[in-house]
Amino acid sequence: MNLHELLAELREANSTKIVLVVADGLGGLPLEPGGKTELEVARTPHLDACARDGVCGLSIPVLPGITPGSGPAHLALFGYDPLEQRIGRGILEALGINFSIGPRDVAARGNFCTVDEAGRITDRRAGRPSTERCVQLCQLLQRIRVPSVEVFVEPVREHRFVLVLRGNNLGDQLNDTDPQALGVPPLEPVGRDEPSCHTAVAVAHFLAEVRQCLAEYAPTNAVTLRGFARHPAIVPLGEFTGLRCAALAVYPMYRGLARLVGMTILDAGQSLTDQVEALKQAWQAYDFFFLHYKYTDSTGEDGNFAAKVEMIERLDAEIPRIRALNPDVLIVTGDHSTPSKLRSHSWHPVPTVLVAKTARPDRVTEFGEEACLRGGLGQFAAQHLLPLALAHAGRLGKFGA
Amino acid sequence: MNLHELLAELREANSTKIVLVVADGLGGLPLEPGGKTELEVARTPHLDACARDGVCGLSIPVLPGITPGSGPAHLALFGYDPLEQRIGRGILEALGINFSIGPRDVAARGNFCTVDEAGRITDRRAGRPSTERCVQLCQLLQRIRVPSVEVFVEPVREHRFVLVLRGNNLGDQLNDTDPQALGVPPLEPVGRDEPSCHTAVAVAHFLAEVRQCLAEYAPTNAVTLRGFARHPAIVPLGEFTGLRCAALAVYPMYRGLARLVGMTILDAGQSLTDQVEALKQAWQAYDFFFLHYKYTDSTGEDGNFAAKVEMIERLDAEIPRIRALNPDVLIVTGDHSTPSKLRSHSWHPVPTVLVAKTARPDRVTEFGEEACLRGGLGQFAAQHLLPLALAHAGRLGKFGA
Repeated sequence: MNLHELLAELREANSTKIVLVVADGLGGLPLEPGGKTELEVARTPHLDACARDGVCGLSIPVLPGITPGSGPAHLALFGYDPLEQRIGRGILEALGINFSIGPRDVAARGNFCTVDEAGRITDRRAGRPSTERCVQLCQLLQRIRVPSVEVFVEPVREHRFVLVLRGNNLGDQLNDTDPQALGVPPLEPVGRDEPSCHTAVAVAHFLAEVRQCLAEYAPTNAVTLRGFARHPAIVPLGEFTGLRCAALAVYPMYRGLARLVGMTILDAGQSLTDQVEALKQAWQAYDFFFLHYKYTDSTGEDGNFAAKVEMIERLDAEIPRIRALNPDVLIVTGDHSTPSKLRSHSWHPVPTVLVAKTARPDRVTEFGEEACLRGGLGQFAAQHLLPLALAHAGRLGKFGA
Repeated sequence: MNLHELLAELREANSTKIVLVVADGLGGLPLEPGGKTELEVARTPHLDACARDGVCGLSIPVLPGITPGSGPAHLALFGYDPLEQRIGRGILEALGINFSIGPRDVAARGNFCTVDEAGRITDRRAGRPSTERCVQLCQLLQRIRVPSVEVFVEPVREHRFVLVLRGNNLGDQLNDTDPQALGVPPLEPVGRDEPSCHTAVAVAHFLAEVRQCLAEYAPTNAVTLRGFARHPAIVPLGEFTGLRCAALAVYPMYRGLARLVGMTILDAGQSLTDQVEALKQAWQAYDFFFLHYKYTDSTGEDGNFAAKVEMIERLDAEIPRIRALNPDVLIVTGDHSTPSKLRSHSWHPVPTVLVAKTARPDRVTEFGEEACLRGGLGQFAAQHLLPLALAHAGRLGKFGA
């Protein structure tokens, strides 16, 4: 019996409200030995109050030592086994732009890039074109026809777009054409099984047309494709929990992830303040709210310690407005760590606080990596945060007699 | 997807060096309520410095409450699931003496023992004969012929030898003939499936010949056999990690374990000082070094608290020479606990420290069981130490988009 089946069996309905605030890449590292992390440096009176009122711990997104991408990291927070449910980047990107992916579709993430006369990549992001130019280029590519396959080319932003191929018997087991290097041409697509060979033939045909189409459009004169993926079979979060789930996310990928597990995507505006306002407006209509905050991750990826500290302080400032709604369970966590020291996602466990009347208090009085080590949740698999939320909301019955 | 497949998928090459120091049976217990463990009593300034500079925790070798033998305990430290990969003692012993085990072989650990006129065991170790005598006795037994099976009898040391039977369709599902008791005769071998019945017949034939052969050689006038095992199918450590792995172990069994997972066995000399010197010599040629230190276990097994403390202090004294090599990741742990109070392996979690620039600091300032409880690694499955080592060495890419 997997966790979903167990939760489905035990679930109980009530009128409680659960808010899951995901501060992307929340966990960090000190810059110097003996120093503090971004979260520990930040002045966070409201998150510290959560730590005092609730129970803290550290979440392990996938397994010790494993650094997750956004997809598996969020699926874990939504209660899925991230090793079992694998979501390709193409699907995430397609969901993020509201593209309605169907069972006959294979999606890939596309990048406009620059190639020289010999076809060798000189800029993997084509000098980051404007989003308007991206839209225009995609309109060009939308004219391409491929035998027996329907082609969709949809702009994302800057150099990024989504390619969707729709047809019969298309597999997704093919390599990225992005060589992840300069001075070499894009790779040829090769399928690893028969249905994926069909896809590879269609992709090769598409790419040949693209070369002609974009020849005069330097620096955006070529494309690379990666993360070919079909839509996974995934049981909706609402189905095994009985929760009416809503997502408040500004960035496309996180809306896509939420849609993937069947959440309703609300108009969340453009800022955290907008998101909290939207949360307030939607309060009566849903039971579970996923609120995604991007900037703790992007500042970490930029290696900007001070900016990450500031983004954490901005999040802290909004916490009182969320608590004013009186959620039965409020969780603040991250999907993974993004230490500015490493300028990337990392494997380090993620500080987590859960506030609920039913939480067993620990003696943690501030919200930080080191303090959370002494928290009542201990170090736990991220996948177990959802059952903890349901339990603290009184939404899980007894297992066995 | 199992852990090996995951690591194989995520692995990234770089030039980092990882050193895994396994102090066998490191964990302990206080002799008196309110007392300290061997490790806590020992003066360990250098291990304490590791704790201050790195991240600590406690490793659970197999599962809470499960006391491991050396085989599963080491396999877990090498990243294998010790419940899935079962290695019989016969295989370990054979590997430890450099015997080249093949797919048609079944190996068993043999002990010379003493029996009385009625064939009842009076000494399970035959008064611990000298290793020279063991060699002579094995030469005698090497003359034994068994129908349709090739027989190898190889000395180990003192009362211990290895028996290998080579033939077609030989199973390893048979009982030990060692009754683990005095005053009773050795047990008859019985196979639990058809191939193992073939083995049992060959073993019975061999044992009948042994009785004749050794009749006049009291006190070494009989043998017992245990741990019948075939060579397991095991994916080499180097294969799924990309690491060039070397072992520095003095004792045969640990060299055998390292060889089993495909490590190169280096000449490690006879002492810890020799081992560290060999480590230094081999530094450029390998990425991962397994350094095994036996005496923390043997003193624990002897129930000699003070001697175990001293052996820990000797290990501590060598730590600066290891750190002087500037490993990117240095781990000091044990394969299991061997509290001198219990005079045996135990299930208690094992103190562990990991030093790396990418480690998230905790506030642990000394290396001991109680201090490690507050460490940033928490209590973790021993199997996850390898992914943690790889992650801290920058040798694992991101999982999923």
